[in-house]
Amino acid sequence: MPLVRIALRKGKSEEYRRALADGVHQAMIEAIDAPPQDRFQIITEHSANDLIYDPSYLGIERGDDIVMVQITLSAGRKPPQKRKLYQRMAELLAKNPGLRPQDLMINLVETAWENWSFGNGEAQYTK
Amino acid sequence: MPLVRIALRKGKSEEYRRALADGVHQAMIEAIDAPPQDRFQIITEHSANDLIYDPSYLGIERGDDIVMVQITLSAGRKPPQKRKLYQRMAELLAKNPGLRPQDLMINLVETAWENWSFGNGEAQYTK
Amino acid sequence: MPLVRIALRKGKSEEYRRALADGVHQAMIEAIDAPPQDRFQIITEHSANDLIYDPSYLGIERGDDIVMVQITLSAGRKPPQKRKLYQRMAELLAKNPGLRPQDLMINLVETAWENWSFGNGEAQYTK
Repeated sequence: MPLVRIALRKGKSEEYRRALADGVHQAMIEAIDAPPQDRFQIITEHSANDLIYDPSYLGIERGDDIVMVQITLSAGRKPPQKRKLYQRMAELLAKNPGLRPQDLMINLVETAWENWSFGNGEAQYTK
Repeated sequence: MPLVRIALRKGKSEEYRRALADGVHQAMIEAIDAPPQDRFQIITEHSANDLIYDPSYLGIERGDDIVMVQITLSAGRKPPQKRKLYQRMAELLAKNPGLRPQDLMINLVETAWENWSFGNGEAQYTK
Repeated sequence: MPLVRIALRKGKSEEYRRALADGVHQAMIEAIDAPPQDRFQIITEHSANDLIYDPSYLGIERGDDIVMVQITLSAGRKPPQKRKLYQRMAELLAKNPGLRPQDLMINLVETAWENWSFGNGEAQYTK
């Protein structure tokens, strides 16, 4: 049930971007029980002018490697699960591709279970 | 009240992309009574590496023609209307541009009626 | 708490796009008390074919300078604040970069306070 948008600066390799996407997905599997096959992700690259971030909001020192991850998912996870998701994603991305935890911004957008069609014009979660 | 984001692989013609956008909009008119003029759509094309999908989640065989449609709209449609929307969109896009229903993923994000300004700095739906 | 996506046609200068982003952020500071440092924005440019808008929905005469601003933010602003946000954003962007108020479309997506991580794998708003 997630649709994931990952935004970063232009210039990273395909391998780097793939590792980001892999880590984001793995964290969802581990922390919020996303099905391993439930993977739909859109990665976008942006110029410096078009990816704007504050370098110290809330005392966190961000740099140009910033990655903004916006996850649309079905409602129902409780705050502890969400916190676990953030923590695990930061851990996994720190390992590979080596993203500093300071440079990971995450936002969840929750939606109803009947708000998804995964193909064939059907609402698979409410059949 | 919808803002529609349509993501697909790079390489389709302008005509193909326009037909996608037309079909998505027509389905909204027919299935959820969207006003015909209420059309605001953003189409984005992505490389194979940057548009990631599972080829068989929920038993649906997806291919590289996959289209991810994310629709932000005002809250209030009931599940039967949403199901009708998915079904009609799949039908229309199968006719033109010939999208396989397996390759259509749809996600709805619902928002409040006062969450829109269509110009002039006004909240037209709550005046 | 906002993540802002700004979409416009290709062809405007970096200065123009920066002025758009500045005005959107300033309006949020003034109208809904967004912290000045709480600035995270993604600007995307699109070809004419890929940024589709209705030129007269609700009687507003839009043109190719249309800008679509989608703001994901924490829930809790009341309708008067939202209306003030739309009005102030239109005013500021009319001054600089000179955007016609007719060409400004705004959509808010509200999300829970625990749905944000601004770095370090932590949910800063719910600690």
